[in-house]
This record gives sequence, structure tokens and C-alpha cells, in this order.
Amino acid sequence: MSDLDHNKDLTVWRRATEYKPPRNWRNWLIGRPLQTADAPHQTIGKAIGLAVFASDALSSTAYATQEILVILAAAGTLAFGYAFPISVAIVVLMAVVSISYEQTIHAYPNGGGAYIVARENLGELPAQIAAAALLTDYILTVAVSVSSGVAQINSAFPALFPYRVHIAVFMVMVVMIINLRGVRESGLAFAIPSYFFIATMFLMVGVGLFRYITGGLGHVVNPPEMVVPPEVLAVTPFLILHAFSSGTAALTGIEAISNGVTAFKEPRSKNAGITLIWMALILASLFLGITFLAGKVSVVPSEFETVISQLGRTVFQGEGILYLAIIAGTSIILFLAANTAFAGFPRLSALTAADGFLPRQLAYRGSRLVYSRGIVALALLACLMIVIFQASVTRLIPLYAIGVFLSFTLSQAGMARRLFKIGRIRPNEEIRERSSTLRHDPHWLPKMATNGFGAFLTALVMLVFAITKFEDGAWLVMIIIAVLVVTFFNIHRHYRNLAKSLSLEHFGPPPPIARHRVVIPIGGVHRGTLAALRYARKLSDDITAVHVSIDSDEAEKIQQKWEEWGEGVRLIIIESPYRLFLEPLLQYIEEIAAKRPVNEILTIVVPQFVPHHWWTNILHTQTAIQLRIALLFRKNIVVTDVPYQVDD
Amino acid sequence: MSDLDHNKDLTVWRRATEYKPPRNWRNWLIGRPLQTADAPHQTIGKAIGLAVFASDALSSTAYATQEILVILAAAGTLAFGYAFPISVAIVVLMAVVSISYEQTIHAYPNGGGAYIVARENLGELPAQIAAAALLTDYILTVAVSVSSGVAQINSAFPALFPYRVHIAVFMVMVVMIINLRGVRESGLAFAIPSYFFIATMFLMVGVGLFRYITGGLGHVVNPPEMVVPPEVLAVTPFLILHAFSSGTAALTGIEAISNGVTAFKEPRSKNAGITLIWMALILASLFLGITFLAGKVSVVPSEFETVISQLGRTVFQGEGILYLAIIAGTSIILFLAANTAFAGFPRLSALTAADGFLPRQLAYRGSRLVYSRGIVALALLACLMIVIFQASVTRLIPLYAIGVFLSFTLSQAGMARRLFKIGRIRPNEEIRERSSTLRHDPHWLPKMATNGFGAFLTALVMLVFAITKFEDGAWLVMIIIAVLVVTFFNIHRHYRNLAKSLSLEHFGPPPPIARHRVVIPIGGVHRGTLAALRYARKLSDDITAVHVSIDSDEAEKIQQKWEEWGEGVRLIIIESPYRLFLEPLLQYIEEIAAKRPVNEILTIVVPQFVPHHWWTNILHTQTAIQLRIALLFRKNIVVTDVPYQVDD
Repeated sequence: MSDLDHNKDLTVWRRATEYKPPRNWRNWLIGRPLQTADAPHQTIGKAIGLAVFASDALSSTAYATQEILVILAAAGTLAFGYAFPISVAIVVLMAVVSISYEQTIHAYPNGGGAYIVARENLGELPAQIAAAALLTDYILTVAVSVSSGVAQINSAFPALFPYRVHIAVFMVMVVMIINLRGVRESGLAFAIPSYFFIATMFLMVGVGLFRYITGGLGHVVNPPEMVVPPEVLAVTPFLILHAFSSGTAALTGIEAISNGVTAFKEPRSKNAGITLIWMALILASLFLGITFLAGKVSVVPSEFETVISQLGRTVFQGEGILYLAIIAGTSIILFLAANTAFAGFPRLSALTAADGFLPRQLAYRGSRLVYSRGIVALALLACLMIVIFQASVTRLIPLYAIGVFLSFTLSQAGMARRLFKIGRIRPNEEIRERSSTLRHDPHWLPKMATNGFGAFLTALVMLVFAITKFEDGAWLVMIIIAVLVVTFFNIHRHYRNLAKSLSLEHFGPPPPIARHRVVIPIGGVHRGTLAALRYARKLSDDITAVHVSIDSDEAEKIQQKWEEWGEGVRLIIIESPYRLFLEPLLQYIEEIAAKRPVNEILTIVVPQFVPHHWWTNILHTQTAIQLRIALLFRKNIVVTDVPYQVDD
Repeated sequence: MSDLDHNKDLTVWRRATEYKPPRNWRNWLIGRPLQTADAPHQTIGKAIGLAVFASDALSSTAYATQEILVILAAAGTLAFGYAFPISVAIVVLMAVVSISYEQTIHAYPNGGGAYIVARENLGELPAQIAAAALLTDYILTVAVSVSSGVAQINSAFPALFPYRVHIAVFMVMVVMIINLRGVRESGLAFAIPSYFFIATMFLMVGVGLFRYITGGLGHVVNPPEMVVPPEVLAVTPFLILHAFSSGTAALTGIEAISNGVTAFKEPRSKNAGITLIWMALILASLFLGITFLAGKVSVVPSEFETVISQLGRTVFQGEGILYLAIIAGTSIILFLAANTAFAGFPRLSALTAADGFLPRQLAYRGSRLVYSRGIVALALLACLMIVIFQASVTRLIPLYAIGVFLSFTLSQAGMARRLFKIGRIRPNEEIRERSSTLRHDPHWLPKMATNGFGAFLTALVMLVFAITKFEDGAWLVMIIIAVLVVTFFNIHRHYRNLAKSLSLEHFGPPPPIARHRVVIPIGGVHRGTLAALRYARKLSDDITAVHVSIDSDEAEKIQQKWEEWGEGVRLIIIESPYRLFLEPLLQYIEEIAAKRPVNEILTIVVPQFVPHHWWTNILHTQTAIQLRIALLFRKNIVVTDVPYQVDD
């Protein structure tokens, strides 16, 4: 063992394994395995940062206007006039949330998602509620973004409409594989499509406004079949609030930068903060511009053609190259938005798992240094949503924003609480917390007011959302979040109790084993039995072979053979008149176990022949497995199977 | 251990277990468990014997006529005139087969099904072909009989037609449960419905003939919707043969008595033989009578009303009590026919399993002394057929009789071969075979001629059947039978090779184990680890603990704890840069295994904590199971997990 480094004293050795995972089909699909030391530590500037983190937020301009119109359609096309004022209200909300998050970025330079902020300032329960809300939301982000991306494509190529679910699932799989490969959030791969989208959208809004002012804008030619309301309603405050709720989908993704502060170049909080403000400005102007123009060209909400598509072909007067550029840019940014969720979900689930609220396996990084299990889980759950809701954005939206606003509320409430604590710190004092340091800040009061107002506002919106969209599906998300929170705490209790049961504190070493008895159940006397006997003889001198007899002729034969081959070991034949095998054996084991002192151990050595072909296993009774399961909960009983390999 | 009987010398003890299976829901469903010694040995007379064994054969009169008409319908209703001549031909075939089987009954007084006769006289391959044909056929008997029984009920109660598949599956389940309880083929339960059926059918045929002669028979009123032929064909020899093939379903079940000779009172061969002749006479007269009358009253073949129902309401002039008696009798005899298959299939599969051509588990008798696994398998397969073919007798029939005729042919060819051997035996000589004794017989030549002619005829019918019904589904049955035969031989080869590998003949006892090394993989140092260490110390002095390290801080902690708790046992820390756990551990085990001499054994002791709630298992990596699977095929390596029970 020359490859071992001897360490400190004679009993501990260290060795760096030369084990290199072999090449297989997974390598081809997701790339060669990476060493832990290979993890990159590169940082990005503001321009690239905008491209990387803004796709989720900006992509919501592709569907937010449409979802407002879908609700207003219930009161007839005249109600579409309310869309623009509603958008203005949403933009005000956006401003408050953005300023709030800008403060979070400065408070948590190591990344301050809602989970971390809530955990640090509000406690375990709000933190887990935030985790449940965010995880649900990431799944819906993938489902909504990909569905909307596919809807854009279908608008240009209506022949693909019947295949929308297939295409959406395929796209989720593509994004999943890219993420399993471990995409580096670095560069051109994100910058090109993001800026392409921003540029084409501003071009469309700009040309549209120019045409509107010069009077040559016109109306949508051949509008698609509109979503037909079941009955025409009056314009009520409820309807307006309902439409407003749908439009708040525009705010989703705005928190992405605060999660990823560490990715920015120093001074990272400042850079990240500036990027956030840029992003909010772009988002607000595109959203307002699109809603405004949509009203002017008489867009109709439809499952068959998106608002963006109708607006594009009206502004650019036909389905030319510029129209196709709009469709392509919008689709790609939507798929990139799904990709953002693929970065967020696995990280958050790993963080929650490390805190012991989700299965620990989720905190394990796969061969490409990404949290592979979280990535696969997200892809499967998103595909499930897409299949259930048939890739319809309108049917998915009622489930969507409630989680986002819940996490906004918790994040900002946490910030307000934190600033309240800061208010009590004297100059030159500081308090160290797990993820950040609290220092004196003379401006704590206005900051607290901002965050507090933000929390109040987002809580209000969440309430409006929950009420207006309750029947459409919000109830389901509330139940899912509640179930998740309960599950998280159950998992946490399990891990905590387990750690306590296994802890070595106040633990006296157990007395050594005084006596070791071995029982060998035998079905026949053959080479496999003898291999087990040979092994058992090495373990102990106190061996009993047991045969459960269903057929007395068979028992007679076994007895004769045992006299020849059994090496004098005691054989007990248990007659089983009800032709049961396991139960009489267990009864016998229980009996001798009951008579035992505490420091005696019982090993059941089961001869097990291992056939060459796996399928032949169904031709044999799997005694060892059944015994193991039956005896798992018995103290001081160990089941060992001694494999005996046969050629067939 | 006072409850043990000491036997011969000090090493073998016998004990009669007091283990009594506990009461549970299965008791309620299928009755209390029975001891092996409880098996009954009662015999029956001719009258009861007819009732018990004839249901399968007689029940085919319920559908055979109809299936002839379905085929003839392709040439228009005028072609129905060919039905009676075809039935006469089928009755001739029936006579030949019956005489043949009567000889089999005398040759095999211990029961001579096609499988036993073929095994003894023709060899392994024909025997397994017979087994495959018969097993397939039993499945189809259940599917066809139950479907036809449900069709009779639907004829009287058309409102139930949409639920025919549900009703059929339910009936199969009822028959399955009755058989799992272990119905005794004893008495009134069979005699009453069988004789009720025979009586009502003869009444119907008798009244019908009387009315025909006296000129008051009339025609079917409101005939049901006929099976519509896709195009009207001419009456060709092919069509006639096709119709004949369908009608041969009337012969199914005729072999039942020869399988069950042992159930009869002594002189059992004679009693069984006479019963067979009675049965054939009843079957032939009912079949001819029904076909004749069906032609006279202008019955039409239909999925919605059976021939029996149409005939019944015409003969009895309305749907009165006598009509309902016909429907009830026919339905019940059809369900009894399914029951016959439930007796045959499990017994044959147990016989084949005992010969090593099917999984041995099928030869195990369940708590009620019946071959429960065979019964359940038959029920599931029959339900599958019913669901696939939507309980349509017409769609099931093309799959049906080919297996029956294949087994007829093999059985009679076997008998002919046997009689040829007998022809060479001199008087007062005898040859003992596995299931029967061959003695001199002066009449061997005419007997051989009968069996040989029977074999030839049934082979011809099988050929006609295979050709005329190839497209309708006969091809599928041929493939299934071929696949089954190949599977049987693969299973047999496995068992034979296994027995050879395990055999103690020419086997020198292996040298005792010289050295026993123990490896304990540890993920952390806790009470579970210490329990495993304590166990390992009892096994050997040569112990190595191994920790595969993904996180070097963690490894540092484990090392420190091990120094305190490890009792001086060597610890090896394997660094795993690719974050793999199992692979570097396996590599290490392979390395030390490669250096070992042959008579050294390696035990991997895996600490395994057993949580209180099963669901929490998904929160842990199942290392022991993965290791076990990975090392299963390595010689001289044993994997043991030492369970440590924790409270949560």
C-alpha cells in the first residue's frame, strides 16, 4: 500500500484515489466528469450580468399584456381600454419592489434570496414557507416560459399547434441536458439572444409609436379567434383586480439578481444594484409600450396567436424578416428564462437540503459539479405541469404569481426586520450573522420604511391574487405550498431525531459481544450450502442448521446428506404442516432470540446462489431478502447472505 | 428445547412446529389455512362424475352453432343451410376423438392428460408442446366460456350489454376466489346446475322438434342485428372449411375426463370410460339438435343476442319462465366450464413446474392446499384476454381450438406409439413406465389403428384450422405456443445447469477459510458505526475502516472522532475528487481482493441504521444494497449489513 500517505499515527491513512469514472453514454450526453477542484470562480460585469439575470424578468413582457386582456375579455372588447391603466399600476409596484431588492443586494453581498433573508431575520417557519413558494414558482416558471415560447412559435407556424405539448416537453429536456452539462453563466451564449431580444422589442415598440404618432399604425389584419368568455360580465372592481393579478406575472424574475450577487465583479453590490435598476427600467418601458400599442392596434387575446405576434405583424406590416426576428427573439428569451429557473431550483433545493429540510441527496453535486438530482426533478415536475395544463399559458398563469409574491413579501419583511435591528446598533458596533454582517446605518429608518411598504404592497397583491384567482387554480398552489412546508418540517424532524439517536455524546461504548450464535437456514444440501457452512464456521463455533420441511421425503434426504457433509453441525428439522417456510423459521429465530442475554448476537447466514443471468432470479424464492425485511427491526440480529456463483 | 425429538444421533433434531398462520383478511376471503395432512381422498360415481367433468364439453353447445353461422353469414343467409351438414361432420370427428380417449382412460388409470401421454411416449419436446398448447387453451377456455356466459345474460337483459367486460372480469374473479378457497369437486354444487342445463336443453330441443313436426315452430320474432359481412362471398370450399373450423369448438373439453380418472370410484377406468361415452352422446345430440332447429327458425348470428336465446324464445313462444330457465342454465354451465379450466391449469402448471419447465414456485400449494399461484395467474391472463377482445366470443374463437387440436393430436399419437410398443410385448411380460404399466394386449392393432386415425384426423383439422383462421388470430396462438415452448426449455436448462453446479457428486469439500478480512465502509462516526465495529471485532482481528471523502473538512472530523472511538482499528480515507462514493470503494475492495489467496474471505460490514418509519428510507442513500448488487458476482466476498435501529 505504497500509495497511502501515513498520517499522524499508525491507524489513519489517506489515499488520493486514482479512480476515474469510465466513459459511457452519459459522457456523450452531458460531458466528461469534472473534479471538485475544477469549479470555476469567474465573475461578470454589468453588461453580461444583465443578459444572464434579466431573461426571466424581461421574458414576462411576452405574456403579461396578453394575460391582462384575457381577463378583460370577459367584459367584452370595450374593457380592453383598462389594460393600460392597469399596466401603469403594475409598473408602480415594479418600482417599489426593485428599490426594495436594490437594498437587499447591498445588505447581502453574498447573495440574498428570499430564503436566506427570511431564514436570517424571520425564523425557520417563514424561511421554509419562502422555500416552498420559490420551489413551486421555479417549476411554474419553466412551465409558463416554455409554454409561452412554444406559443410564439405556433403563432408564426400554426401547423405546429397540435404538437405544442410535445415541443414544450422536448424543449424542457433540451434545457435539462444543457444544465446537466453544467452551463457556465458566462457569456455570449446569454448576451447575444438577450440583447437581440431587447433590441428587436425596442425596435418594434419604437416603430409602433412612430407609426401611431404619424397615423399609419392601422389594426390587426385577420385577428385570430378570440378567447370566448362564457358570459359577458360588467366591468366590476373585481374584474379589474383580477386582470391586475394576471398582469403581475410581469414582476416574476425580478429577484434573480439578488440571488446571484456573487457572480458580479467587485464592487459587486454596487454593480449588481445598478444592473437591477437597468433591468427594471427596460422591463417597465417594454411592458408599458407593448400594452399601449396592443390597445391601439386592437389586439385580441387568443390561444392560437400571441399578442406579440399580432403586434409584430401589424407594426411591421406583414410577416417579413423583422416579424420573424421578433418571434425568434421572444421564443429564445422565454427558453432562456426557463434556463434561469434551472439555475435557481437546484441551488435552492441544495441549500434547503443542507439545512435538513429536503432529502440530503439533493445537496450532492453530480459528475459535472451541478446539483443533477435537482435539475432532473425540476424538469420532470415542469413537464408534468405542461402535460396537465396542455402547455396553455392562460391556464398556468393563475397558479404562477402567488408564490412569487409570497417570497417577495417574506424577503422584504425580513429586510424590514433586519433594518429595525440595525437601527439599534450604535456606530462602530457590528453584529455577525450567518450570511451577513449588521453594521450601524444612519439611513436605516427610510430604508426600513421602503422595505416595509414593499412588503405591505406585495402582501396586498398576494391577497388580491389569492382571492381573484382562487377558483382558477390559486387554491391548488396554496395547498401545495402548505403540504410542502409540512413535509419539510417532517423531514427536518427526522434528520434531527436521527442525529440525536446516533450521537456519541453521553454515549458509553457498548460491552463487547459475549456470544455469537449462527443459524443457517437450508433448503437442501448442495455446494451453496457448504459455502455458507464454511463461512459460518469461521464466524463462530455455535452453529445450528435449520431446515423447514414441507415434504417429509425431502427432509429425510437432507438429513442423510447432512450426516455426510454437515461436519457434525447440529441440524434442526422444523415440520411445517401449513407449507409455510418463512413464518416457522422466524418463529424459531424469535424463540432463541427471546432467551438471549443482551450482549449476545445472532447471525443468520443464508446460502444464496447467484445465477449468471439476472432473469433467472424469478425462478427462485428470494429467501434472504424476505428474511432481511422481516428481521430488520429486531435488535442484535444480523442477516448475511453468502453468495455462491453458479454458471447458469 | 424440550419440544424437539432427538433423532438417531446427536446432530439431528426434529420438531413439529406449532406455528399456526394468524387470522387476517385473506382468511375471510379464502378460508382458514389447511394442513397438508387435510388433503381429501374421496371418489365419485358416474352420475356425479358426468356433472363434474362434462360442464366444459357440454357448455360448448352454447356457442358452437353460432360460430358456424357467423362464418357462413359471409355468403349471405342462404349459406346457413350448410350449417347442419357441417355439424354432422363435427359429430363424426367427436365420435373418433371420444373412442380414442376412452382407450386412453384404460391405458392411464392414474390420469392421462395429453402432457403425460406425450411425455411418456413421444419425448420431451412433444410433451412441452402439449403443455404450451393446453395452458394457452385453459386461458382461452376461461375467456370464451365467461364471455359466452355473459353474452347469454345480455341476450335476456340487453341493458347490461355495455358492461359486458366488467361483468366478465367480475365473474372470473368470483371463480378465482372460489378456486383459491379450494372447491372440492364433490357434489351437488356441480350436479344440480349441470343436470338442470341438460334437462332444459333437452326440453328445448324436444319441444322444438315436436313443434317442427307438428308444423307450429315459426320463426324468430324481431331477430337481432346480424353480424354484417364486409362483402358477400361465394360459397367456396374454403368458406365451408372455415365454418367447420369454428364449429370444432364443440369438441373442447372432451379430454377432461381422461385427466381426472383418479377421481372416479373403482373400477375407475371402466366408470370413467362409460361416463365419457355418455357425455359424448349428450353433447352430440344437443349440438345436432340445436343446429338443426337454428336453421329451421331462421336464427341469425349476432353480438347482441345469442343463438340459444333466439332459439329459446322461438321454441317457447316468448320470454317466459322456460326461456329464462334456458338462459340461466346456459350461463351457469358456462361459468362452470371456466371453473373446470381453473382445476386444469394450476395442476398442469404444477406438473410442468415439478418437471422443471416452469418456475418451481408454481408447484407450491398455498394455504388451502391448491396451487394458488397458478390459479391467480390463470385469472389474470384470462381477464387480459377478455379486456383485449372486449368479451366477444366471435373474436376469441379463432384463437381457441388450435391448442385443443394440437393436444388431441399429440395425445393420440402418443397412444398410438404406446400401442405399437405393446404390440411387441409377449404375453405375461410387462414394462413399467413412470405413469403406467405396459402389458400384452391381443387387441393392440385395432386400438392402434383407432388412435392413429384419430391423430391423423385431429392433425388434419388443426391444419385446416390454422390455414382458414390464420388471419383471424390463429397466427398469434402459434407464436405464443412457440414462445412458450422455447421459454420452457430455457427454464429447464437453467434448472439442470444449476443442479449440476450445485451437485455434491465428485465434489471435494473446500479447504477451511485461512484468513478472514473485514472492511467497514463508514460515512461518519456515530452509534451505528460503532455497532458495526463491535460486530466486526467479533468476526475477525483484521479490520479496516474505509471512509470515502468528498469533503475534506468532513474527513478531518471523522478522523478525529475515529481516533477517540475507533478502538485502534486502521482507518483509510480515500479522497474522491469526482464526488463518487461507491466506485472508489469498489476499486479499493477489488484491489485487496486481487491480492488475496483463494482460501481467504473478505466480509464487508456495512453499518445501516433502520429508521422507524419506512418512508424515511428515501431520505438516505442505500449504500448496503448498492454494494451488495455490485459485489454479488465476486467470489469469496460477503456483504453484511449490521442494522442499527433508531427511533426516527
